[in-house]
Amino acid sequence: MIDPIIIGTVALDSLETPFGKVDDVLGGSASYASIAASFFSNPGILSIIGKDFPKKHIEFLNQRGINTSGIVTGNKTFRWKGFYEFDMNEAKTIKTELNALESYNVQVPDDYKGAKYVFLANIDPELQLEVLNSIKKPELVVMDTMNFWIEHKREQLLKTIGKADILVLNDSEARQLFDTPNLVKAANAALKLHTRAVIIKKGEHGALLFTGSKYFNAPGYPLENIKDPTGCGDSFGGALIGYLSKTKDLSETNLRKAVVYGSVLASFNAEDFSIERLRNINSKDIEGRYKEFRDMGKF
Amino acid sequence: MIDPIIIGTVALDSLETPFGKVDDVLGGSASYASIAASFFSNPGILSIIGKDFPKKHIEFLNQRGINTSGIVTGNKTFRWKGFYEFDMNEAKTIKTELNALESYNVQVPDDYKGAKYVFLANIDPELQLEVLNSIKKPELVVMDTMNFWIEHKREQLLKTIGKADILVLNDSEARQLFDTPNLVKAANAALKLHTRAVIIKKGEHGALLFTGSKYFNAPGYPLENIKDPTGCGDSFGGALIGYLSKTKDLSETNLRKAVVYGSVLASFNAEDFSIERLRNINSKDIEGRYKEFRDMGKF
Repeated sequence: MIDPIIIGTVALDSLETPFGKVDDVLGGSASYASIAASFFSNPGILSIIGKDFPKKHIEFLNQRGINTSGIVTGNKTFRWKGFYEFDMNEAKTIKTELNALESYNVQVPDDYKGAKYVFLANIDPELQLEVLNSIKKPELVVMDTMNFWIEHKREQLLKTIGKADILVLNDSEARQLFDTPNLVKAANAALKLHTRAVIIKKGEHGALLFTGSKYFNAPGYPLENIKDPTGCGDSFGGALIGYLSKTKDLSETNLRKAVVYGSVLASFNAEDFSIERLRNINSKDIEGRYKEFRDMGKF
Repeated sequence: MIDPIIIGTVALDSLETPFGKVDDVLGGSASYASIAASFFSNPGILSIIGKDFPKKHIEFLNQRGINTSGIVTGNKTFRWKGFYEFDMNEAKTIKTELNALESYNVQVPDDYKGAKYVFLANIDPELQLEVLNSIKKPELVVMDTMNFWIEHKREQLLKTIGKADILVLNDSEARQLFDTPNLVKAANAALKLHTRAVIIKKGEHGALLFTGSKYFNAPGYPLENIKDPTGCGDSFGGALIGYLSKTKDLSETNLRKAVVYGSVLASFNAEDFSIERLRNINSKDIEGRYKEFRDMGKF
């Protein structure tokens, strides 16, 4: 059973942080999200790559139990080039080459259509909506986005949000999208768009889950060395949907656990470049850190 | 028994936030801290006011069980004038009139000298050290500071920190004092100065407690309307020392509880101007919100 379905980007990233520099490494929202989800379930990806995309990456995804039959091949792979300054808070873009992404026609394989859990990872909101319309009876739709779509496709984005059950976004995106510095106000505005829950990722400051009547605050993990924060948000969303599709429990209590698993995977991901840290952890590491998260919030 | 002893400023503040404007209201680190502490114990203040200071404020402090015999009277009360912009994150100073504070000679009443708990609230670090030297056998010294002293009296500040058991400061001060964007690194640097614990206040993002081997993350309280954040940090420190002097338990487990009580009082304080909200809450309100803090971190 292929579940969850994840649509997003598969990219080749070149980036520099105060801790090093990498060129043409595996990146993209669907890559991070599917790898994080694969610790809990068997995701299927929808994305586009180019002929220049190294085969070894697809082989790696497959080894992790990720179905890649929904990845189509265009001309040239989507590329992002950027850097982080000393405070590591914000990715600065040097260059974005959309390449094959510009003419991406989503093709949803038949064996994806029965999936119950869908993660609309960061990509054009029109593509997100198109995918959503192809899945027969989704039980839970989680979506992420980024500032680029808030600025350039606001109307389409709000339309897609209206169809999602859970909106996941980071604090600056929440402030920008709902035009308020106050995250509680932003979350309440999001809940009015018929979403069942809003999750605000705050990097080092943890994550917040709003479900209307309840509020949950997941701690931030105390990382002394953040090598590369790229993909932390995507890893968060992937682990969240992966855990929910595994447990099939959408209670608020279980959503809290999913938010913590999201935080666990994001905290690991920041410890190395690209997907290198996720490549080297196992379920025992994840459970160990989950327990650490529990201990550090106890009083 | 007068305990804890709190040295800090007693001020008349004039300020504006997007939610209103007040003139010459009760302010100052010792005012906020002692009121917050008074919900748990019987603090004594060390500070200076001017002949222009309204008697009603002293009467109010006394009604709350706060000993004010350590407040001396100089010429004119310390005044701060400032404002907050829409994001409420940072106080912008329009004018600071030190007035009587400039020639403040600390006079520690004899019945203060046997106190076991000392809170060196934000004030000149040389005055903090002088007070500390007057207390016979303090069991716990907690200190706070602000960017002004980091910039202008760095050496004296570090000397005072070396004598304190617990350093409490906000995230931007921690980054500035220890010259790193990473709060874990800042906390570790602070622990090397022979402090037993470091508490980093992060406003809406909660508070962190570092004790070397352990790490605690208190949630941020979801306030939709922050009327005036002035004195939140001081209320935090006051509640912390008040709770510790009441419980006389310096275990890491109890420090966590003290951090949460600090967060509870700070969250109330932000809900109205000056000390107005603290004036109107009672122990039941505090316990109710403490329970809310517990619920919002549970998973």
